[in-house]
Amino acid sequence: MIEPMTSAALYLHPDRLFPAESGTRLIAKRLFASVKDLPLLSPHGHTSAAWFAENNPFPNPTELLIQPDHYIFRMLYSQGIPLEVLGIPNAQGHSEQTDPREVWRIFASNYFLFRGTPTRLWLDTSFSDLFGITERLCTENADEIYDLIAAKLTEPSFRPRALYETFRLAVLSTTDSPLDTLEHHRAIHSSGWHGRVLPTFRPDPVVDAEFTGFHDNLRKLGELTGEDVSSWRGYLDALRKRRAFFQENGATATDHGHLTARTADLSQREAEDLYVRIYNGTFSAADAVLFQAQMLTEMAAMSVEDGLTMQLHPGSVRNHNAALYARFGRDKGADIPSSTEYVRSLQPLLAKFGNDIRLTLILFTLDETTYSRELAPLAGHYPAVFLGPAWWFHDSPEGMMRFREQATETAGFYNTVGFNDDTRAFLSIPARHDVARRVDALFLAKLVAEGRLDEQEAVEVIRDLTGRLVRKAYKL
Amino acid sequence: MIEPMTSAALYLHPDRLFPAESGTRLIAKRLFASVKDLPLLSPHGHTSAAWFAENNPFPNPTELLIQPDHYIFRMLYSQGIPLEVLGIPNAQGHSEQTDPREVWRIFASNYFLFRGTPTRLWLDTSFSDLFGITERLCTENADEIYDLIAAKLTEPSFRPRALYETFRLAVLSTTDSPLDTLEHHRAIHSSGWHGRVLPTFRPDPVVDAEFTGFHDNLRKLGELTGEDVSSWRGYLDALRKRRAFFQENGATATDHGHLTARTADLSQREAEDLYVRIYNGTFSAADAVLFQAQMLTEMAAMSVEDGLTMQLHPGSVRNHNAALYARFGRDKGADIPSSTEYVRSLQPLLAKFGNDIRLTLILFTLDETTYSRELAPLAGHYPAVFLGPAWWFHDSPEGMMRFREQATETAGFYNTVGFNDDTRAFLSIPARHDVARRVDALFLAKLVAEGRLDEQEAVEVIRDLTGRLVRKAYKL
Amino acid sequence: MIEPMTSAALYLHPDRLFPAESGTRLIAKRLFASVKDLPLLSPHGHTSAAWFAENNPFPNPTELLIQPDHYIFRMLYSQGIPLEVLGIPNAQGHSEQTDPREVWRIFASNYFLFRGTPTRLWLDTSFSDLFGITERLCTENADEIYDLIAAKLTEPSFRPRALYETFRLAVLSTTDSPLDTLEHHRAIHSSGWHGRVLPTFRPDPVVDAEFTGFHDNLRKLGELTGEDVSSWRGYLDALRKRRAFFQENGATATDHGHLTARTADLSQREAEDLYVRIYNGTFSAADAVLFQAQMLTEMAAMSVEDGLTMQLHPGSVRNHNAALYARFGRDKGADIPSSTEYVRSLQPLLAKFGNDIRLTLILFTLDETTYSRELAPLAGHYPAVFLGPAWWFHDSPEGMMRFREQATETAGFYNTVGFNDDTRAFLSIPARHDVARRVDALFLAKLVAEGRLDEQEAVEVIRDLTGRLVRKAYKL
Repeated sequence: MIEPMTSAALYLHPDRLFPAESGTRLIAKRLFASVKDLPLLSPHGHTSAAWFAENNPFPNPTELLIQPDHYIFRMLYSQGIPLEVLGIPNAQGHSEQTDPREVWRIFASNYFLFRGTPTRLWLDTSFSDLFGITERLCTENADEIYDLIAAKLTEPSFRPRALYETFRLAVLSTTDSPLDTLEHHRAIHSSGWHGRVLPTFRPDPVVDAEFTGFHDNLRKLGELTGEDVSSWRGYLDALRKRRAFFQENGATATDHGHLTARTADLSQREAEDLYVRIYNGTFSAADAVLFQAQMLTEMAAMSVEDGLTMQLHPGSVRNHNAALYARFGRDKGADIPSSTEYVRSLQPLLAKFGNDIRLTLILFTLDETTYSRELAPLAGHYPAVFLGPAWWFHDSPEGMMRFREQATETAGFYNTVGFNDDTRAFLSIPARHDVARRVDALFLAKLVAEGRLDEQEAVEVIRDLTGRLVRKAYKL
Repeated sequence: MIEPMTSAALYLHPDRLFPAESGTRLIAKRLFASVKDLPLLSPHGHTSAAWFAENNPFPNPTELLIQPDHYIFRMLYSQGIPLEVLGIPNAQGHSEQTDPREVWRIFASNYFLFRGTPTRLWLDTSFSDLFGITERLCTENADEIYDLIAAKLTEPSFRPRALYETFRLAVLSTTDSPLDTLEHHRAIHSSGWHGRVLPTFRPDPVVDAEFTGFHDNLRKLGELTGEDVSSWRGYLDALRKRRAFFQENGATATDHGHLTARTADLSQREAEDLYVRIYNGTFSAADAVLFQAQMLTEMAAMSVEDGLTMQLHPGSVRNHNAALYARFGRDKGADIPSSTEYVRSLQPLLAKFGNDIRLTLILFTLDETTYSRELAPLAGHYPAVFLGPAWWFHDSPEGMMRFREQATETAGFYNTVGFNDDTRAFLSIPARHDVARRVDALFLAKLVAEGRLDEQEAVEVIRDLTGRLVRKAYKL
Repeated sequence: MIEPMTSAALYLHPDRLFPAESGTRLIAKRLFASVKDLPLLSPHGHTSAAWFAENNPFPNPTELLIQPDHYIFRMLYSQGIPLEVLGIPNAQGHSEQTDPREVWRIFASNYFLFRGTPTRLWLDTSFSDLFGITERLCTENADEIYDLIAAKLTEPSFRPRALYETFRLAVLSTTDSPLDTLEHHRAIHSSGWHGRVLPTFRPDPVVDAEFTGFHDNLRKLGELTGEDVSSWRGYLDALRKRRAFFQENGATATDHGHLTARTADLSQREAEDLYVRIYNGTFSAADAVLFQAQMLTEMAAMSVEDGLTMQLHPGSVRNHNAALYARFGRDKGADIPSSTEYVRSLQPLLAKFGNDIRLTLILFTLDETTYSRELAPLAGHYPAVFLGPAWWFHDSPEGMMRFREQATETAGFYNTVGFNDDTRAFLSIPARHDVARRVDALFLAKLVAEGRLDEQEAVEVIRDLTGRLVRKAYKL
């Protein structure tokens, strides 16, 4: 097989991602310098509030960097390395007896697989900037680097709250079940620590009738709110109460992770009848789909009332690998994007609320063909519609450039909402924002170098993308 | 909210849109210089023949530049500015009492929204080249620039015919209802003025059974031609007569704006039966679709007979915003592209006429995924098929580059037909051709700089794209 | 019409395809230099084993370069030149009486049509490197160049085996019917000549129930193997025997050219029943589709057993031009790509074998939208899945760059399998590999110049892409 290289210097070029042509590079450097040190706004992500509530040290390099990061272990798995060997816990939460150092060695020996991927950029940036590592990770230095990171993790400056500050985070949003007690968010708040760790209302467990434990979830929803969730009205009121509870605890947004972007606008009577079938478990597959579609429109209605910004993330075929899912459960790198339609799918919702400036609906996609064909035209017309940044598989230098190149000419910059790091890999957050700011600098520098925008305007745009547009879209 | 910048110089870089790398830029400059001053051929657009027939001055900057241009007001609308406030007339043609100067001020204060869009390039080019404006439009200079433009519009050199000449237009095609009297085109012709303003036959009002006033349109078609349009044969003959009437008045092309590219090839009997249902208003939705599909094939048959070039513009979901449509009618920036299929859709028509060199069928798309997958392979095989330029939302520097990058390697340059400005914004025409010529120069310069084409050949290609291929495709 | 240029120098720039920016160009040159002279591995193509078995001289320039190359004559045809005039044989194998020199003259006069296409690059490279031609082909020098090539073809160094060596080919795979006797492959082997010309098992004629002569093909399959192909078991065993026969004669791979990527996993009983209908000719169109889908899964099962690498090439609508097909038969440039779905289509096969490292399944596409959306995510997760290079219409500089730009960030380099020339145009093989190596050098140089990869690593990657990954994927 392919033999990896032996150790070499880890050098992060200060102008990385900028174009080679010197004129454009100089402009990109100036634009980047104007936002490089601005605080990080992270309005959408998947870190754990418990880290910041408890502020315990992270256990070891493997548990921190490899085992929670499906970008990393999906690549290793794709080359034939079983998840068991990597100590990934199974669906019951148990992992095979694995030595974290042994897992790290496997990772190190296969580090060459990540060449050309954003994961490589994020990791190298963390290694260099955070841990001061000066050699590229490889078989030979695996132990040395493991020990170095492990030692750092015991220091007070590597605890979650200290890192939040080192990273200059100003806001860090989590993604939470509508049934969550938000105890960790409340604990953070009452601790007096100044960090802003905000919950996000993600109702999938109580709007997706095929979600594991759906009926139990409904029952709990009723208990938590004192509403009679056997009725459509009671169910909606229960959701309103939970949204209010999230808002009281700092939430400014909801998030919706549907298979498609389909929306519906049923009559009161049709919706009630549908809900009866959903609640009683007598629904068909088509009913489940229709119910999710209807619930997007209901959620938009509630957003118009309570002002929560609404995020829609459609298009991922979850748990594509049935055998792996049976053994390891969700979020194991086996979610695969598929073709996604927005124009007709969103029409029912947009007919009702698309012209309402009280709604902020942020659309994301895994189907890049929709940037220029569907999403930019929608965002460039409907007052309620905004475009989220390049998402998931496309959250990468080339992916971000395609987003700007394909969306800007129709939607402009001001119908977009800045960057989301969308990660559960806490240590990668500064690196991800660094990449996003560099790519925006690169895109804008190209416009300036080609006489399409004045540099003074480009500075204003990149500052807006980094700060103001995020704060406005997410009401921060 | 985002505060716009205060005034700054309006500077149009002479090398705008060319790449920063100096070698490629020099080649691009030379290529552009070879076509920069060639006359403009505009074989597809939406200006009004009445302007040139009557040659009245344009009323004021707002009525000329903002209110007819859905590229502009859709962006303003997307940021929450109501169309009423912009004085856009409603479906009945009435507009709220608005002061054009007040609308201009709103536009000026929001000019930053257009950063990175082609609209910004077109407007800046008009402002600078045509009106001699030296400051970028902003809140502070809105009145001053309004007054400057308003004053110019009263001068004889800013009347429609004078501008036609200033712009070095050699042909300007309009798009016209098949029921149009073409009185303005005839008036231009009989006036002795040398400008060539040609009609284009766009039969949607009499082939789309769901078009507003469809049955009345059929009745008028019968009256105009003396044919019995209650029969399939009479209907086809009526269309033949109208095509002949258009040709007599200068038309060289037809245009077809269908929702899909679907074509059909029914038997005589099936077609007659279908027409009975269409004519009697007893048709189903599927019938209406099938009728449009059949009519594309009928139009191709007539093109083989009479030689009119046939243009197909599918893929726009018209009037997506129902509330806005009810209030303001069509062409208000709410047409949204959708996924478009060509390969199977066009097969019936191409089976009949695709090998016939008497037919010139020009295909356009709003779905860029079809460039490399469907359109270039079709145009690179069928003698009758040619590719129209990047269209509508894609009529922009990045969009045009994607077209060349994705279509050229399979279809070459010689199965394309040069540029269409496709606009109702008359003043933007020189700027749009300027952008198109620059992007072609840029694309070709890259080929030359990378040793893929000799510069001498590139000069020949850009001259062909600017002139000969347009004249050939549109029979000018 | 467009008049072609008169003759000019044919100059192949040594840095062709490299970017103009000097820093990146220097890196690209160094990377290219590190692989420029490596042997060519051609694991997928359409040359004829008979050429190498018989080692006869090629007849004349037209029969060698134009008449077998549908890239060339489809472009000429698209501009209205009838295939008869080019001496393309009809479906019965007869061609109109044409003088090869006359065909060559037509080609020469239309050589400008290929500007900007890869065909132009391949031809110019052959003309210059192989024949030492120093003028660009045009009307004026058509005869002279014809004579020069014709003279060369009579020399021993231009016989097939000599060219195989001149080209530094190390492996050349053909594509063969499962009913092929492989006599030419065997003759090559027993001749003692060291060239490796390997067959590839392409079972379309016996798995596609709508293939011309399908039932006869089944009968022959039974005869060749002594199996009772009237039963499902006998049919499968017959295929196993033919695969074994191919392996004995050097095959390392199979190839599957389906219309879609659909797979199925029927029960034993369902499969048997389906086969009865297929065998008896009582199948529906849906049955034929389902049978092909099931056969992909069966072929994967056999690959797990016998180790043959499996290639899937879906998405081409074959013989789109019915009239042309009736007259000239298949492979006449009238195959048109269409939208292709992989995620749900492959799920049945992948559920069964996607996690099995004994399977190597190489996916190709004509639908570039699937690179980032479907293919890279699948290859970046499933151990069995690898990505084939940019295919057919996309086997071009821009097409190859899009592949790397859109697939690498998710799948990395190590889930790809290097280059396939996929050609029946033998003389274009070195030029095609040259282009592929240059584009990889260019892509990697960009990563290096932008600080995304160290140059030392880039050297390793380009060597892996050129050699090791090909050998591993195709088990060479």
